[in-house]
Amino acid sequence: MTYCLGILLPIGLVMASDSRSNAGVDQIASVRKMAQFTVPGDRSICILSAGNLATTQAVVTGLRQTAGTGYLGDINSAANMFLVAEMVANKLREVMARDASFVQPYGDPSGTFLVGGQIGDEPPRLFQIYSAGNFIEATDRSFYLQIGETKYGKPILDRALKLDTSLEEAAKLTLLSYDATIRSNLSVDAPIDLWVHRTGKLDDSTPISLDRNDQYWTDLRSRYAEGLARLVESLPAAPLGSP
Amino acid sequence: MTYCLGILLPIGLVMASDSRSNAGVDQIASVRKMAQFTVPGDRSICILSAGNLATTQAVVTGLRQTAGTGYLGDINSAANMFLVAEMVANKLREVMARDASFVQPYGDPSGTFLVGGQIGDEPPRLFQIYSAGNFIEATDRSFYLQIGETKYGKPILDRALKLDTSLEEAAKLTLLSYDATIRSNLSVDAPIDLWVHRTGKLDDSTPISLDRNDQYWTDLRSRYAEGLARLVESLPAAPLGSP
Repeated sequence: MTYCLGILLPIGLVMASDSRSNAGVDQIASVRKMAQFTVPGDRSICILSAGNLATTQAVVTGLRQTAGTGYLGDINSAANMFLVAEMVANKLREVMARDASFVQPYGDPSGTFLVGGQIGDEPPRLFQIYSAGNFIEATDRSFYLQIGETKYGKPILDRALKLDTSLEEAAKLTLLSYDATIRSNLSVDAPIDLWVHRTGKLDDSTPISLDRNDQYWTDLRSRYAEGLARLVESLPAAPLGSP
Repeated sequence: MTYCLGILLPIGLVMASDSRSNAGVDQIASVRKMAQFTVPGDRSICILSAGNLATTQAVVTGLRQTAGTGYLGDINSAANMFLVAEMVANKLREVMARDASFVQPYGDPSGTFLVGGQIGDEPPRLFQIYSAGNFIEATDRSFYLQIGETKYGKPILDRALKLDTSLEEAAKLTLLSYDATIRSNLSVDAPIDLWVHRTGKLDDSTPISLDRNDQYWTDLRSRYAEGLARLVESLPAAPLGSP
């Protein structure tokens, strides 16, 4: 499984992915599910992948090979983020048309993507591409999107994430959302790749990677766990009568 | 959808169910998914249902009609909780054998159950009955069981629930688990039925029901939300460099 999260705020974008890849619980590997497409001063784009790893790697590698060539599907010359989302979706359909029937006897060939970024003067945009190759865009009413193992990490976002949350706070909430997911589901694990884009800052933005022993990550997890235990303890007990 | 939770502690049992029943989002009703089978001084049993409402009601009503008759499948004369779990499973298979093929053209006929309680000198026990009619029992390594929409409410339990948690604390955590689920998923909603059984107390134990405006429930939710916001704010910001 996988957990990828994208958050679109007026102030910028936060995107994150875990690194656990597995085919059954006895075949586990660590992979990068985040890809950057950057043209300094012009565009800064991040693509997150979930689903069949061969499919998603074929899509991202295909896009990478075309980037900068000027051919059809060149992310580096797309005029806006909507066209980038379309390029990812088209490449997905192309890969599925070629591979799906071969893969189906062995498992699910499908993949999904989050595509976020900023091109030129456009504000940052965020898209979710479904396995069918259709896609939706984040808005100020639905400003975060998730793919993969999405449920465990949703409550903390629904509680605390607001449109006017700062990028630093949104990054912290992102990591707490991963903490909840990793505690409850073996199929999601660190390192966590975290990409933060501030609106208008179109130079090369390198993601940071937090491994299992990262000091901030372990400190955040233990402080949150302790704080939550204290909080729960401080709340009034349920009125049970005398069971 | 539905969310039902059963917690088995040495000190007793906590069982809870929500009340939302829906066939699509445009057909919503409030139903009770909790049934008690009590023989004061002898046994105190609670059954929680998820899945197709016609199926689960047929199972529970069938068991209710047999209870006390001395016929095969009489919960009131089962010698132990394992046999009660078997009676629920058998009744489920009977209902499915009769109804499933008629229902399948319209939707999923299957149902699942949590069966908890105490009979005589046996310690309390807790079982989860799958739609196939097979079942598992909770142990001290896996001491809570969930059916229905289980994921949103799992992180708070994995963090805070321990084998030596008191019944009052376990009931509070149960409600916080429902809070997380209800915030993130429309298909689960109050009233919440909550049954708390203290080990050895085999008189009639009536569940309490918390509706949407219950003072303890609304107070707990708002205090937890405020406390969590303060906690998140108090944690150090993510080290982003200068995005």
